[in-house]
Amino acid sequence: MTGTWHHIEGGVTAPKGYRAAGFAAAIKPGSTKKDCALVASDKSAAAAGAFTKNLFKAPPVQWTEQVVRHGRMRAVFVNSGNANACTGEQGFNDARATAERIAGGLEATPEEIGVLSTGVIGVTLPMDRISNGVDGCLRALSPEGSIDAARAIMTTDTVPKERAVEIHVGGGKIRIGAIAKGSGMISPNMATMICVVTTDAKVSARTLKTLVKDAVQVSFNQMCVDTDMSTSDSVICMANGAAGLAEIKPDSPEFPCFKTALTALFIEMAKALVKDGEGATKLVEIQVTGTNNDNDAKTIARAIANSQLCKTAFYGGDPNWGRIACAAGYSGVKFDTSKLSLWLDDVMVMTQGMPANYEEVQAAARMKKPEFIVRLNVGDGTGQATFWTSDLSYKYVEINADYRT
Amino acid sequence: MTGTWHHIEGGVTAPKGYRAAGFAAAIKPGSTKKDCALVASDKSAAAAGAFTKNLFKAPPVQWTEQVVRHGRMRAVFVNSGNANACTGEQGFNDARATAERIAGGLEATPEEIGVLSTGVIGVTLPMDRISNGVDGCLRALSPEGSIDAARAIMTTDTVPKERAVEIHVGGGKIRIGAIAKGSGMISPNMATMICVVTTDAKVSARTLKTLVKDAVQVSFNQMCVDTDMSTSDSVICMANGAAGLAEIKPDSPEFPCFKTALTALFIEMAKALVKDGEGATKLVEIQVTGTNNDNDAKTIARAIANSQLCKTAFYGGDPNWGRIACAAGYSGVKFDTSKLSLWLDDVMVMTQGMPANYEEVQAAARMKKPEFIVRLNVGDGTGQATFWTSDLSYKYVEINADYRT
Repeated sequence: MTGTWHHIEGGVTAPKGYRAAGFAAAIKPGSTKKDCALVASDKSAAAAGAFTKNLFKAPPVQWTEQVVRHGRMRAVFVNSGNANACTGEQGFNDARATAERIAGGLEATPEEIGVLSTGVIGVTLPMDRISNGVDGCLRALSPEGSIDAARAIMTTDTVPKERAVEIHVGGGKIRIGAIAKGSGMISPNMATMICVVTTDAKVSARTLKTLVKDAVQVSFNQMCVDTDMSTSDSVICMANGAAGLAEIKPDSPEFPCFKTALTALFIEMAKALVKDGEGATKLVEIQVTGTNNDNDAKTIARAIANSQLCKTAFYGGDPNWGRIACAAGYSGVKFDTSKLSLWLDDVMVMTQGMPANYEEVQAAARMKKPEFIVRLNVGDGTGQATFWTSDLSYKYVEINADYRT
Repeated sequence: MTGTWHHIEGGVTAPKGYRAAGFAAAIKPGSTKKDCALVASDKSAAAAGAFTKNLFKAPPVQWTEQVVRHGRMRAVFVNSGNANACTGEQGFNDARATAERIAGGLEATPEEIGVLSTGVIGVTLPMDRISNGVDGCLRALSPEGSIDAARAIMTTDTVPKERAVEIHVGGGKIRIGAIAKGSGMISPNMATMICVVTTDAKVSARTLKTLVKDAVQVSFNQMCVDTDMSTSDSVICMANGAAGLAEIKPDSPEFPCFKTALTALFIEMAKALVKDGEGATKLVEIQVTGTNNDNDAKTIARAIANSQLCKTAFYGGDPNWGRIACAAGYSGVKFDTSKLSLWLDDVMVMTQGMPANYEEVQAAARMKKPEFIVRLNVGDGTGQATFWTSDLSYKYVEINADYRT
């Protein structure tokens, strides 16, 4: 593999040629937090994205899918506090009007401006305040603005999420940066969230599309906080080529390194989202091996990751491995139960489908950790998958029992 | 339809020729509650059942499936406090030994004795105490014993559940009675629970099998408390003919009435289980109409019933209908979102996929009720389904975070 990569500080403005901003526009009445974010490339960038499959796709997502379909993007605007979902034609017109206002400020065309919204469903956007937010963001755009943008897109997230990597290839340096928000409604296809990714690599829209799709598969699509899929899930990626290096094509020597770094960034962001999932106190990695194929492993891992009973046991730190085996057993994947082995980190709690000889206190200690691994081997197959989930706490119920008030 | 039916007091001993008992045998160490139950027919009865599809089918379920396959049954023994699941060959031998001991006391053959267990997974049965429980139950068998049996099978249930109906047909009276336990791990295919049903009608094992299967489809398989399917779910039905009436066959004039009454009993029991689901404070009925077929309606209803976000909104009494529409939107069923209408009881909150004109306080009032209906119409099709779910409360998390200690 040509090239090396490592993590660096920063987010969407770590790559060259990007500016970002966050602005408080009281989109949710009475709110004083930053709630409008803008991430802009100095010049037109190749664009790719992955979007929710929910039938109730929010109007801004519909707008932004169109933008991505054209393959070029100058900027993405995100507001929190209102999802502009289930708002019909008015919602779509509001998304377009927002894009137009940003385009005016950036001397771009509206068709190059992505617009995303997250928050309450079924309420039309307060367009006067959105306009105010757009103008505020345009004024505040800065090469140091990533953290402000990361803060502005937060809803029930407790910490802003930004990450960046730097890739050293023959001719120089490439960077990839990202900001994202969770944190409820996180479930496969897609993980309910918004993630904006920037890179100064030169990549065609077509190649970027494949890269994003593949990376989403093994990151945002393999995590869950709850089992709900939102109407606004989106991953947007821009590549502006500002690093000044040769184009990265599928057959370029640096392609594998670029793909690995991008995927690692996505996985790290996915884990950060799960860890900050609503009410989450733990990040649990589910590793399944020994199935006939990767899909079967994913299905088993998902059943465990989605199980309310497993998730409450994770919360309580109760090594109730019966619930884990049980979830595997109803996942729909056929396997020989007498071949199942199960570990909590390094403690084997089941072997050959039966309780192993272990110390309860050892197993409990593993599950008290803020991060631990649940590992299942169900047979001799080569299939495998990794999934990330959170625990289910009192706090989750509190947050969601009365979200709107 | 020949015949009429109505609800009566009582449970499994309401029909003629049955005795039942409950006994405290400290199956869970230190417990003083009744934890062993026996339901016995005075003479050999036709038997049918429906069982969990979990790969980790508990050994007693495997045993009892064999019994049911033979079509005849004298009694069912149920212990709580230990599920005898993930216990391998030892578990199966223990189930058989239990059946043998009961058979000895009833002058029956072990092959006519069902044995079921519910409770913690992965611990072998304390056979000395099980034997004590069997003997205690045999001594206590009584025509008034239904309520004791109903109490003995409870785990985290808060109230014992017994129901009975009486059917008047040309020649006289037939009764059907039932006891059941929930209350976590309740999810379709099957609803995690144990239900024992008795009738003094004369019905062949083959006919009974069809009746039970059909009734389970529209009752226990259309409810959920959480999304987990247990290793012990079982419905057992005995028909001993003690009413002394003619055999009920599929072409008998009284067959439709018998089927209706049996189905109504199952549905009532399913609702009782959901209502007493772990931490449940509300019983929510999900009605979906307008799909192309019943299966699609069921899929949409299930997505809503399983949604953690919907269930926490139900708990909070928050009329956050966006979450309900959202769950319908990711259920996997294709429908025209611009045709969706949504009601909370009688309050229309969405019409044509958009917010309806309603008073927030009216909608909230409906959701504060201990029982309310969520009704969705998604189009012009004739498909429909009804599903029952509970809310997700702090108490659910508390109960399940540390179940074993």
